[in-house]
Amino acid sequence: MDVDVLVFDVFGTVVDWRGSIIAEGEAVWKQRGLDLDWGAFADAWRAGYQPAMDRIRCGEAPWATIDTLHRRILDDLLTQFDITGLDDAAKDDLNHIWHRLKPWPDAVAGINKLREHFTVTTLSNGNMGLLVDLSKRGGLQWDCILSSELAGHYKPDPQTYQMVCDLLAVPPERTLMVASHRGDLIASRRIGMRTAFVRRPLEYGPDGTPEQPDDGVDFIVNDFIDLAAQLG
Amino acid sequence: MDVDVLVFDVFGTVVDWRGSIIAEGEAVWKQRGLDLDWGAFADAWRAGYQPAMDRIRCGEAPWATIDTLHRRILDDLLTQFDITGLDDAAKDDLNHIWHRLKPWPDAVAGINKLREHFTVTTLSNGNMGLLVDLSKRGGLQWDCILSSELAGHYKPDPQTYQMVCDLLAVPPERTLMVASHRGDLIASRRIGMRTAFVRRPLEYGPDGTPEQPDDGVDFIVNDFIDLAAQLG
Repeated sequence: MDVDVLVFDVFGTVVDWRGSIIAEGEAVWKQRGLDLDWGAFADAWRAGYQPAMDRIRCGEAPWATIDTLHRRILDDLLTQFDITGLDDAAKDDLNHIWHRLKPWPDAVAGINKLREHFTVTTLSNGNMGLLVDLSKRGGLQWDCILSSELAGHYKPDPQTYQMVCDLLAVPPERTLMVASHRGDLIASRRIGMRTAFVRRPLEYGPDGTPEQPDDGVDFIVNDFIDLAAQLG
Repeated sequence: MDVDVLVFDVFGTVVDWRGSIIAEGEAVWKQRGLDLDWGAFADAWRAGYQPAMDRIRCGEAPWATIDTLHRRILDDLLTQFDITGLDDAAKDDLNHIWHRLKPWPDAVAGINKLREHFTVTTLSNGNMGLLVDLSKRGGLQWDCILSSELAGHYKPDPQTYQMVCDLLAVPPERTLMVASHRGDLIASRRIGMRTAFVRRPLEYGPDGTPEQPDDGVDFIVNDFIDLAAQLG
């Protein structure tokens, strides 16, 4: 397969959002008095994300970054989980937990290997500031960081995938979208991208239901090292 | 000085456009029959760039990428230098010489050193595809690649500098614009950025007139290693 550019979804595909939130919650926030079910808290936070974006995608709400959406959801959750006593700076710090998500164990080495032969970029709904911060902290080295923010549309809107092709001057059929989410891959394929489904069985936790690929994917891989092997 | 983000101009500041064009011209294009004064050709090509951007900045012409502007200037130059016999693919290849510009000798090591303590990004009038290509070929490792293309305005329009602050969620006074061109630094300072002037005495060739910093710069450095030393 002749592809030049690998386009990576980030939350869930590259970084373990659920495990990272639980780990920081237990290690840091518990000591500050937030003794919660951090798995449930992470799940509730993530669950608010899709509806918040959908309101923007449908034109019901004006553009807002994921940092802003995460913060609005957090404010609701703090009420819902009956958490009081956090000042504004502490809430901002907690909200920035999404900037500190950790890569899956294979991610850094896998991306470095793939970079030897391909141009690797992100295409995430995370805003640019978040992605730059998360990548620098996690040692994730990209050729380029792109965000839906630059298109003013959230994935899976087609404008986001097309933006990657336009900015990097590459036809869709010479790109490979890499994600652990079938909806992302289906939408990218509609504009002509090739697709690779990455199995992340623990994305939703040990009791969660892992996503499954649809029939149209070009590759099904266990991790990024496997992707490098399958791409030759 | 408390800065978090270093913002690099690219053409002339990070890469040696004139020397790179001469070197590739002599090594590659001469053998293909283009036996020119490559220094004069590079100078003429670069000289067309500012007026072409200015027409866009003033609203006289619609947005076009630097790749497109470089190609239009090239087409004129081929007539002017009386060069015939290049087919369209060869002209595209020659135009992409701007994707193959080489970093100044200190650039890769200097940026790597600066990355240990700061977030480093580009802010170039070069389009994203060009910057990604040039960085990957040259081994230049950024935390983020940003282009005026993303603002839909060319430097020195203030929207370009402001875009960096907005996307990276950093106030201007915590950024340092790094450039070998006084106009770029003066414009960035107008929105509140700190400024570092890099001496690149050979940017315009051994007989060219090097640019000089204005009085308002925070740092005057000989190269990026010196910048790292001055920033501590």
